[in-house]
Amino acid sequence: MGRTSDAGEKVLAAGRSLFEARGYSALGVAEICKAAGVPKGSFYYFFESKEALALAVVDEHWADQRREWTRVLSGEGEPLERLRQLFAETEAGLRTGQQDCGTVPGCLFGNLSLEMSNRTEAVRTRLQEIFDAQVEMVDAVVTEALDRGDVTVTDTREAARSVVAQLEGQVMFAKLYNNTGRLSSLWANSLALLGARAT
Amino acid sequence: MGRTSDAGEKVLAAGRSLFEARGYSALGVAEICKAAGVPKGSFYYFFESKEALALAVVDEHWADQRREWTRVLSGEGEPLERLRQLFAETEAGLRTGQQDCGTVPGCLFGNLSLEMSNRTEAVRTRLQEIFDAQVEMVDAVVTEALDRGDVTVTDTREAARSVVAQLEGQVMFAKLYNNTGRLSSLWANSLALLGARAT
Repeated sequence: MGRTSDAGEKVLAAGRSLFEARGYSALGVAEICKAAGVPKGSFYYFFESKEALALAVVDEHWADQRREWTRVLSGEGEPLERLRQLFAETEAGLRTGQQDCGTVPGCLFGNLSLEMSNRTEAVRTRLQEIFDAQVEMVDAVVTEALDRGDVTVTDTREAARSVVAQLEGQVMFAKLYNNTGRLSSLWANSLALLGARAT
Repeated sequence: MGRTSDAGEKVLAAGRSLFEARGYSALGVAEICKAAGVPKGSFYYFFESKEALALAVVDEHWADQRREWTRVLSGEGEPLERLRQLFAETEAGLRTGQQDCGTVPGCLFGNLSLEMSNRTEAVRTRLQEIFDAQVEMVDAVVTEALDRGDVTVTDTREAARSVVAQLEGQVMFAKLYNNTGRLSSLWANSLALLGARAT
C-alpha cells in the first residue's frame, strides 16, 4: 500500500466526496487521508497541497459533467428539448445526491465559487473556465434554436449566461431548502429568458 | 477592557467583515478575537460559539439589508421601477465592496447557504427565513405590478422566487469573475421572468 497509483485514486475519490459534502475550508488533509485510508505521505506524493487536490477534484468532476452535458446537448431532438433534458438530468442528479447523503449537495462548482474564488486565483481561474465552457455549450443550443426561429433573443451569449445563472441560483435554493422541487421552474424560466415562442 | 458591551460589538463587527471576506470554516475564534482586539474570554462571554456569532452576524446583516429593501421597495414610483432600483443599489453595494476589499464579496446569505446549510440546521433555518422574507417583499411588488397590468405572470410567489434566484445566480458570477457588470442583465431578465409588457 502507500505510494501506488491506487492511493492517488483513493485520495481523489475521498476528496471529491468530502469537498462536495462539506466544502473546502472545513476539511484537513488528515481527515481526507483517513477517509481515503492512506497515510499522509501518500497524499503529498500525489498532491502538493489541499489546493492541488481541490483543483484535481474540480477537473475530474468537470470531465464527467462535460461528458454528460455534451451527450445531452448534442443529442437528438429539437434544441430546446435538449435544454429541457439537461435540467431534468440535473434535477435527477441532485435527487440521487439527496438520497445518498440526506441533503441536496448543490453544485460543486457553485459551492467552491462562493467559498473559494476570492481566496485563491488558481481555483477562481479554473472555475471561470468551467462556467465559460458551460455558457458556450448552452449558447450553441440557443443559437440553433434561434436559427430555427424557436427563440427571439438576439444576444445568445448573454442569454446563455442568464440561463446558467438561473440554474445556479435555483440549485442554491434546492440546497438551502433541501428540496429538488425548487428546480421545477427552470424550464419555464428559461423559455422566458430566451424569449421562446409560445408552444 | 474585556467584558464590556463594547467588546461584544467589536467581535460582531470583526465577524461580519471576516465572514463576508473569507467564509465560515476558514476562520477560527482566535483570529476573530485578534481582529476585534479583544481577549478570547470576551468572545465567549458574548457568544457561546462561532456558530452563535455567525447567527448574530446574519441577523445584523439582514436587519440592515431589510431596512434598505423596505426603503426601496415600498418607496415612491411605479412598482417595477422600484424593483429596478433594488438591482441598481445591489450593484452599487457590490461595487463599494469591491473597492474596499479588492474583490466582489458576493452575498453573505448566498455564501453561507452554499458553505453551511448542509452542516448546521440553525444556520439553514435562519437563511431560509431570510430568503423567504426577500421573496415575500419581491412578491408584494410583483402583485402591485400585476394589479396595474404591468406584468402578465400569474403565480406571483413563484415569479418572485425566480427573480431572487436569478439575483443570487448573477451575484455568484459577479463574485467569481470579480465583475459587477455581470449584474447588468438583471433588469431585462427580471422583465422577461415576470412577463412584463413591453414598455
